[in-house]
Amino acid sequence: MDQPKPKKTCWAVIGGGNGGHATAGHLGIMGFPVRLYDIVEETVDKLNEQGGIEVEGHVKGFGKLEFATTDIKKALDGADIVMVVAPAIAHKAIAKTLAGSLSDGQILFIHPGATGGALEFKKVLEDEGCRADVLIGEAMSLIYAARLAETGRVRILGMKGELMVAAIPSNKTDSLLEKLNEAYPMMHPGKNVLQTSLENLNAVVHPGPSILNTSMIESGRDWKYYWDGLTPTIGDFAEQIDRERLSVGKIFGLGLKPILEWYVLEYSADGKTLTEAVRNTKAYGSIKGPERVDTRFLLEDIPMGLLPMVELGKLGGADTERMEAVIAMGGFLLGKDLKIGGRNLERLGLDGMSVEEINLYLETGKKQKA
Amino acid sequence: MDQPKPKKTCWAVIGGGNGGHATAGHLGIMGFPVRLYDIVEETVDKLNEQGGIEVEGHVKGFGKLEFATTDIKKALDGADIVMVVAPAIAHKAIAKTLAGSLSDGQILFIHPGATGGALEFKKVLEDEGCRADVLIGEAMSLIYAARLAETGRVRILGMKGELMVAAIPSNKTDSLLEKLNEAYPMMHPGKNVLQTSLENLNAVVHPGPSILNTSMIESGRDWKYYWDGLTPTIGDFAEQIDRERLSVGKIFGLGLKPILEWYVLEYSADGKTLTEAVRNTKAYGSIKGPERVDTRFLLEDIPMGLLPMVELGKLGGADTERMEAVIAMGGFLLGKDLKIGGRNLERLGLDGMSVEEINLYLETGKKQKA
Repeated sequence: MDQPKPKKTCWAVIGGGNGGHATAGHLGIMGFPVRLYDIVEETVDKLNEQGGIEVEGHVKGFGKLEFATTDIKKALDGADIVMVVAPAIAHKAIAKTLAGSLSDGQILFIHPGATGGALEFKKVLEDEGCRADVLIGEAMSLIYAARLAETGRVRILGMKGELMVAAIPSNKTDSLLEKLNEAYPMMHPGKNVLQTSLENLNAVVHPGPSILNTSMIESGRDWKYYWDGLTPTIGDFAEQIDRERLSVGKIFGLGLKPILEWYVLEYSADGKTLTEAVRNTKAYGSIKGPERVDTRFLLEDIPMGLLPMVELGKLGGADTERMEAVIAMGGFLLGKDLKIGGRNLERLGLDGMSVEEINLYLETGKKQKA
Repeated sequence: MDQPKPKKTCWAVIGGGNGGHATAGHLGIMGFPVRLYDIVEETVDKLNEQGGIEVEGHVKGFGKLEFATTDIKKALDGADIVMVVAPAIAHKAIAKTLAGSLSDGQILFIHPGATGGALEFKKVLEDEGCRADVLIGEAMSLIYAARLAETGRVRILGMKGELMVAAIPSNKTDSLLEKLNEAYPMMHPGKNVLQTSLENLNAVVHPGPSILNTSMIESGRDWKYYWDGLTPTIGDFAEQIDRERLSVGKIFGLGLKPILEWYVLEYSADGKTLTEAVRNTKAYGSIKGPERVDTRFLLEDIPMGLLPMVELGKLGGADTERMEAVIAMGGFLLGKDLKIGGRNLERLGLDGMSVEEINLYLETGKKQKA
């Protein structure tokens, strides 16, 4: 294979977990100048020692890094695209960290935003007094399926064939895509960051099904999350949750895609129900279920997924009873109120706004009084 | 073993299921005149053909029946105690059936009442215009653990060492017990039918844990309801539900017993948590889990257990959030609103009453305006 030509666009990857490794490694292999920021000294030291990241699986090679660092200023200096690849529960803290070091013309890309990632980043940057003219965008999910073997070595199991992204304001989504497509030609525009946010399917398949799998999770058995966990009643419940998601989208004029259609698109999953579809999908056979209830399936996908969906739904009378029951049940099982610290309208910078005002804000970035 | 002396008190057992068989068979073995009512012709014909019920296990022998019948008038004629041993969801229909055939001086004993059984019976009899002077009472649970082998043959696995009962009005609980103790010396008085109703532990250990076991239920595996199903998180959740139950009782001045104390009392269950207690209890090892979600664990224990607890709790500001979440989740999983057709305050004859008025009614049977 020919060595790819050196590229100009410089990427700063924020986060050194599964997704951050995969992203930085792959970008390096593609020939982009790339640096990685993480808060863990050991991670950074190991990566600098190696000089990059070993990538296996779907993509193979050694992705050279310019450097890894725990210094956010150094990470951002000279970067064209700042890509956040981190759990959504860390987004707020990351946004605060970034606020003082961003500069005009940079792209801040949340990959993925869970539900409301770009909106929350924008709100935090404003609250922190960040004046840099930064273009903020998000992806509806992570483009990589990846597992860290160890620091500096990652296995990319697969990559999505297409991925929806959007900017806030959405009238700049094309500018965003122009840069992202240099590395990721499969990224394409969504209507706005509410579409990318509401197409967060983790909120559909993680919290509710996990709760209904509590005894399986604690059984000490090896089990398959989708194959064993999405039994007919649980699959049906997930589809009920999905219909609530669609009804939230409808309020904002978004024709969201039902989960079953996504699964057909992504995995050619065959079946009339979600349960049939996942059980007919071989790729799901390798996905193990969690062994504890306190995982991101509840701790992230409830406050950063279901909660903002419920909050948005309230603006237009969507029925989100099932989501609300899951939010409550998750809290009871974990012994904490998952609404506290979650993405409510205020945190998304949308409190006090009507649906029309929100839609205008999503498109133009401007808030005007009604 | 000597043949027991013939006894005088005549019992009419309403219901030919596990509990009805065990009760009628055991009463027959004890020497009481007993007849059994059921709506199924085949059951009645088979019992009449046999002349009684074969009992195995904890109690052994042949319990002679006077007769079995589908004719409620015939069943009740001459009976001193009419004992209803049937699913709580059938109580309302049974009360209507009984209304025209009860006579002065009879005891109507709901065994068990689930939550609000005696109150619902009293309300239906009044609504139906029944003028017979009948003493109504209920037990907090079924005294027998029994499994029907086939019609006419039942295995009694065990009997409770003590069982709380109460009459409505509670100032007649002693009269009730005088008759019941002839056959069941272990029955003892509760404060009133709200105590027997709120000590319904099925509402604590069935609906919530079943929901959290949905994938286990549909796994196709053989599993143990308590040993496998009450994992640490699920046991903890059941204890949370139990604390809500205790707080409902507190409103009515009832010092209910926490579930863990009941388990220690009934099974000498040893453990600091519910999960530890049931896993340390050998008897639970033989109790299999259901293979379908639409069982009495949800269909009965939600509308006839959790729902009336929540309704009663509302009168005094008890926190019943967990019970409400379980009621909602159960409805979503079964695709039906389990509040409809459930025991709300109106159905218990308690709507519009204050806590004080209810307590007075429970003691005297009289409703007086505030």
